[in-house]
Amino acid sequence: MVKSKIISIGDELLNGQVINTNATYISEHLSKAGFDVKCIVSLGDDEIDLIKELNDSREHFDLTIITGGLGPTHDDITKGVITDYFKDILKLREDILEHVKFLFSRREISMPEVNRNQALFPSKAEIIWNENGTAPGILYNDNGKLFIALPGVPYEMKPMIENFVIPKIKNIFSDKLNSYCLTRTILTTGISESALSEIIGDVEKLSFGNKFAFLPSFYGVRLRIDVKSDSKVNAVKDLNIIVNNLKSILGEFIYGYDSELMESIIGKLLLKYSKTLSVAESCTGGLISKRITDVPGSSRYFKGSFCTYSNESKIELLGVNENTIFNFGAVSDKTAMEMAAGVMEKFGTDYALSVTGISGPDGGNLDKPVGLTYIGYCDKKNLYSLRYNFGDNRERNRIRASQAALNILRKELIKIVSD
Amino acid sequence: MVKSKIISIGDELLNGQVINTNATYISEHLSKAGFDVKCIVSLGDDEIDLIKELNDSREHFDLTIITGGLGPTHDDITKGVITDYFKDILKLREDILEHVKFLFSRREISMPEVNRNQALFPSKAEIIWNENGTAPGILYNDNGKLFIALPGVPYEMKPMIENFVIPKIKNIFSDKLNSYCLTRTILTTGISESALSEIIGDVEKLSFGNKFAFLPSFYGVRLRIDVKSDSKVNAVKDLNIIVNNLKSILGEFIYGYDSELMESIIGKLLLKYSKTLSVAESCTGGLISKRITDVPGSSRYFKGSFCTYSNESKIELLGVNENTIFNFGAVSDKTAMEMAAGVMEKFGTDYALSVTGISGPDGGNLDKPVGLTYIGYCDKKNLYSLRYNFGDNRERNRIRASQAALNILRKELIKIVSD
Repeated sequence: MVKSKIISIGDELLNGQVINTNATYISEHLSKAGFDVKCIVSLGDDEIDLIKELNDSREHFDLTIITGGLGPTHDDITKGVITDYFKDILKLREDILEHVKFLFSRREISMPEVNRNQALFPSKAEIIWNENGTAPGILYNDNGKLFIALPGVPYEMKPMIENFVIPKIKNIFSDKLNSYCLTRTILTTGISESALSEIIGDVEKLSFGNKFAFLPSFYGVRLRIDVKSDSKVNAVKDLNIIVNNLKSILGEFIYGYDSELMESIIGKLLLKYSKTLSVAESCTGGLISKRITDVPGSSRYFKGSFCTYSNESKIELLGVNENTIFNFGAVSDKTAMEMAAGVMEKFGTDYALSVTGISGPDGGNLDKPVGLTYIGYCDKKNLYSLRYNFGDNRERNRIRASQAALNILRKELIKIVSD
Repeated sequence: MVKSKIISIGDELLNGQVINTNATYISEHLSKAGFDVKCIVSLGDDEIDLIKELNDSREHFDLTIITGGLGPTHDDITKGVITDYFKDILKLREDILEHVKFLFSRREISMPEVNRNQALFPSKAEIIWNENGTAPGILYNDNGKLFIALPGVPYEMKPMIENFVIPKIKNIFSDKLNSYCLTRTILTTGISESALSEIIGDVEKLSFGNKFAFLPSFYGVRLRIDVKSDSKVNAVKDLNIIVNNLKSILGEFIYGYDSELMESIIGKLLLKYSKTLSVAESCTGGLISKRITDVPGSSRYFKGSFCTYSNESKIELLGVNENTIFNFGAVSDKTAMEMAAGVMEKFGTDYALSVTGISGPDGGNLDKPVGLTYIGYCDKKNLYSLRYNFGDNRERNRIRASQAALNILRKELIKIVSD
């Protein structure tokens, strides 16, 4: 195991102005290469805080990657601090100066005097060339503990990580890397985290001690499995066993894997069977239609939608019976079905979905609380509606309703195979 | 100065799967309230690493906020670790159990047994109620050093920060906070970052040396001004001068301030004048309708929308003339106008908007490239359409088109005052 730490430097990371996507990027690349990222730290432009972290790294970590604070201005402290930390001195390097001058000349700008500082480089460190900027990276090997400092500008830092840092450190730590790490994310919906946990039972046993995480979201709970093994063959084998066990336990609660989206999955199924879809929305207000059309090429199966936000429009535009709304309400089983049947007829599609509910925060009562939602489904043979209660948060309600509606269609579409 | 640290817990933060937006959110709120965030740390679900950080907090920080790891499953370690750390024990609290049961009953789901664990609470800690989830927050005051643990689910954590944590810690640390920091964000749309920069000119002069940032997004460019001053009176005065100068320079490019949303702004205007709106969408596929109905209470002015993703539906459902599409194409000035007029008639509203364009990635050609978009506007007196080219990225195109459409309506609505 190579214990690794990432240090991100910059005041803007500590006052909420900038999200630390650099650390996410680096941690992803390190993890994929078999390193164990145990800690990510963000610090301000502060010498004492950085020295404290360098001491911690020396004591506890094999690899430390620092980004930020390598620029030419007064608040860039990283180069000075780590040069002092390793009792080194800065020397002018002509090759760096040439590179900096070249970068300015290419943009037809004369080099500001302050950039001459960037050619000062610690005498005992190894250079990491920066093709896209004036600040080179710095590598110290401190008795087998590696310290790497890179610029914080993402388009400068990223090629340095991919082209130099990863190959270099894989080589240095080759005998200590996790041989093979594989990750799979199983996407579930329509079941809570705790219900999943109960059904799955003993997670340790199921995953033979590999990492297993429940990641809830409004779209459903994702299950992430990280398998580590001594060889690729074994990692693949272990992961397949775990995933197949989960498949047999969870069945149709699983709608996809990894970065798949529900809207892409139903899109592929509709395309496969050459079927078309239309949608009638009330409380979701266009969200389902928006999600379906997020997918490039969706015009091949999606014909369109109505958002009918008033009773009149449900009656006049979708053909919902006035008496249905009068007797059962706009948020009812029957209205949902008539909306689905109505929109299917208007667009002449093979399938139709509808949603009517109370998103909140207002509009609920004891009989029909905020969150109550009916989802209608219609095809050439079937017409039905399902009742849900999604809770009292408007945004969450709407996302959950859109996900549940698309999931109903998904479950109907996968039946086609077995019909 | 109140030295503050944020600890985010979760393996998913260390392998690149999840970007740590929680820490950014918390650091922003702490900074605004006058706290000095000196360090953000992300750790895995690991007891030893968390204890190490708690020791560091006790020694170096006044305030530590921890998020994540409070859920009911095996990988949630935070509650256990900090209870042990403060030599405390967990006791079953009936009030928490009631709350957890209530949350499940509201969704008409029976509570899984594992959720009973969430009613176990450290006996010496103060509770922070979680309105949106089953895991309460935990507050320890350790001889004036505060430790606060919150769930990692953003929609649970955020209201806890805003409604409880910030007021509480401002009160506790009132005599140690930074004097006065004020922030204002000016929201612009329909103008590029570089064009704004040219119009504004010398930023240092305009902001008297205060921080000034250009923050571009698909919705438009935000201008953020951070004013620091020795007194509240002076901070308010400085900020007002800067904002008023920008107002006079930028005029109607400014559509709002701070966290305002375009859809809320047009909603307020429609309510104010008791006017109604409907929308006809093609390439935006429901996005405009979705944004309008994101706003609670939007049913008072929004009657509904059509998403007509095919030529036939534009003709049959919206009444667009077949010859218009034949002669000019579905993506044309005339089609946009007929869509707006058609949907306004169908829903009987005071205003209507329409969008037809080529979102990409396919469907473009030399005459009509990807990104070409026409937005139609209709009211009782006027009918027109505007032509845009939003570029070649599908997601960006759709967001820009929705923002431009709503902005056209906004500009028409603010004219009412002067009519």
